[in-house]
Amino acid sequence: MAKPPTVIDVHTHCYPPGYISLLKSRTKVPYIHQPADAGADPRLVILDSDDDPAIPKDKRGRPVDSSYSSWAEKLKFMSTHGIDISVVSLANPWLDFLPSETAQSMAQEINDELNRECEQQNGRGEKEKLYAFACLPLSAPAEQIQAEVVRLSSLSHVKGVILGSTGLGAGLDDPKMESVWEALAANSTMVFLHPHYGLPLDVFGGPEQVAKSGHVLPLALGFPLETTIAVTRMYMAGVFDRHPKLRMLLAHSGGTLPFLAGRIQSCVEHERVLDNNGGPNRGPKKSIWEVLNTNIYLDAVIYGEAGLRGALAAGGTDRLMFGTDHPFFPPLKNEEKWKSVESNLAAIEGVSGSDKQMAADVLGANAARVLGIKI
Amino acid sequence: MAKPPTVIDVHTHCYPPGYISLLKSRTKVPYIHQPADAGADPRLVILDSDDDPAIPKDKRGRPVDSSYSSWAEKLKFMSTHGIDISVVSLANPWLDFLPSETAQSMAQEINDELNRECEQQNGRGEKEKLYAFACLPLSAPAEQIQAEVVRLSSLSHVKGVILGSTGLGAGLDDPKMESVWEALAANSTMVFLHPHYGLPLDVFGGPEQVAKSGHVLPLALGFPLETTIAVTRMYMAGVFDRHPKLRMLLAHSGGTLPFLAGRIQSCVEHERVLDNNGGPNRGPKKSIWEVLNTNIYLDAVIYGEAGLRGALAAGGTDRLMFGTDHPFFPPLKNEEKWKSVESNLAAIEGVSGSDKQMAADVLGANAARVLGIKI
Repeated sequence: MAKPPTVIDVHTHCYPPGYISLLKSRTKVPYIHQPADAGADPRLVILDSDDDPAIPKDKRGRPVDSSYSSWAEKLKFMSTHGIDISVVSLANPWLDFLPSETAQSMAQEINDELNRECEQQNGRGEKEKLYAFACLPLSAPAEQIQAEVVRLSSLSHVKGVILGSTGLGAGLDDPKMESVWEALAANSTMVFLHPHYGLPLDVFGGPEQVAKSGHVLPLALGFPLETTIAVTRMYMAGVFDRHPKLRMLLAHSGGTLPFLAGRIQSCVEHERVLDNNGGPNRGPKKSIWEVLNTNIYLDAVIYGEAGLRGALAAGGTDRLMFGTDHPFFPPLKNEEKWKSVESNLAAIEGVSGSDKQMAADVLGANAARVLGIKI
Repeated sequence: MAKPPTVIDVHTHCYPPGYISLLKSRTKVPYIHQPADAGADPRLVILDSDDDPAIPKDKRGRPVDSSYSSWAEKLKFMSTHGIDISVVSLANPWLDFLPSETAQSMAQEINDELNRECEQQNGRGEKEKLYAFACLPLSAPAEQIQAEVVRLSSLSHVKGVILGSTGLGAGLDDPKMESVWEALAANSTMVFLHPHYGLPLDVFGGPEQVAKSGHVLPLALGFPLETTIAVTRMYMAGVFDRHPKLRMLLAHSGGTLPFLAGRIQSCVEHERVLDNNGGPNRGPKKSIWEVLNTNIYLDAVIYGEAGLRGALAAGGTDRLMFGTDHPFFPPLKNEEKWKSVESNLAAIEGVSGSDKQMAADVLGANAARVLGIKI
């Protein structure tokens, strides 16, 4: 029998103990709250929409059990689902909320902790290996952000950084992001772009309407639409033209970017105010298809064949990488195998069909090649 | 040689003379403004983002030439691009802005005009035939809306209605829409759902940032994201459960619904507050996949293979229908064939490959069967 393909999970989060302590010390979003019932799991409140005064404080957000911070749980989850290697990343909202003065030291502390945990695990001779996407001190002065990008290159188990869609606070098309992009491109640092802020709840009918279906609208739509908007703004601002070596891995298969790429390209080509069409303003030089095939990589966290086919057609089979979004979307009952993971695996299997190489590429070979992980 | 497939355009707009007069009589969005230079084309301002006080009034919006209201131009466009049949619809924002008292009579007038033009054209014995999606007097009292739905069933060339994403003003999950859905389902009226309102410009970085790339961000992203949100809200509110016979044709291949369907379904299945999971609130009974395969049809206005593959995988080859979005996205130079149309045709050809039946279905056979058009 042929050796089964190596499975690498590029979208899997953790809250190392240092980060949990930080969240427990806070009372504003993001924060962790211990309910009055000491036996109950603490509540993690990371979205503004979760911090609803109409909901008792002990019920807001979601329960944060040991799976959020325990390395043993992560390894058990990997073993259960046949995942050989996880590239763990701090969960949203990362360090975006820190005061400027403490951001750099906190980033260093967490990144060193992540690197050390991975190094220790990989030295144990077990099947399951760990690597990490580090975090950046985005609220710190620009030179401190750049210094951390450079420092991360020396950490053996760090394979890139995770980044939110607002950058320094004003979006990824913010001119102040230029020095960050420059540092990331110069150090060949992979940027795992992940949503957190969603869209204003009014676009979903307001907080009360949204609450009727819990997290569905903000998570199912707000998250991927946020990613789509953030990357398209970057694209329109010419970031990929100015930083051709910038590499980004987009969460949730790019939000909806693969599906909308044709429309974006058509709108650019039909827009009178853009340079490319003789207009007064600068437009992107590269086509969105070129960006999808040079700068952008996609995870395969899309839970169905329809999305996966779009993602594959936009970026090709060599740019798509399996992910789970663990520890989010756990089973509601106590099934051992997670439905959220199974649906992503089934979509890869369904789309690959008899093309075993394609399945192996998406499951792990692409991530190994692109991130420089030995398998 | 085999007969080439019949081509039916289900997404093609017109502004009949009565509607043009209405817009010319207005000074608030939506309106048509005649620049001081009498030789210049009037300017059509239909989006709030176009009515920017920083732009001289004579330059706001887009030029509205004869292609917007001339039936001769529509027929010439059809002939140039090999389109046999067009199902024309009033362009956004339809009659959404009318005072309650005049909505019903204006809707009747425009719908009769559309029906008459189609009837006359089809009696001429020419190759190009016309049908119409009518409009509804949404600002009128509920019984007048219902009466117009019933009346439309008697108009020989009307094949459905076009509808915006806000319904009566509060979205398609508005309980006040129930009587409208009921009337539409009872009369087997196809609803062509079309965006207009976009998203707040702040999500794109604010008006100034948006203006740098003209209409690109509101049109390329705002429009499809609006459609996605509107339909998902309908879905979450159980509209498709309560009205199983409701049929909707979604503009721009469903916005991004096909790509996000897997994520929506996964979020529903993992949401503790929903009934289906034993939670306190009602959730949709049908899966989103079932809705995509029973209630929903998609146009193929997506400008690329990546999106088209996603749309096909979500709804199947028998639910997708060719469209052009004429007279929008005209060539910037005077090319005879429109690039916007060619890219949609190329995507259908590329995805169909050697499957001629699939191409013929998407190009026209699906629309003929679903809308009841004899070919």
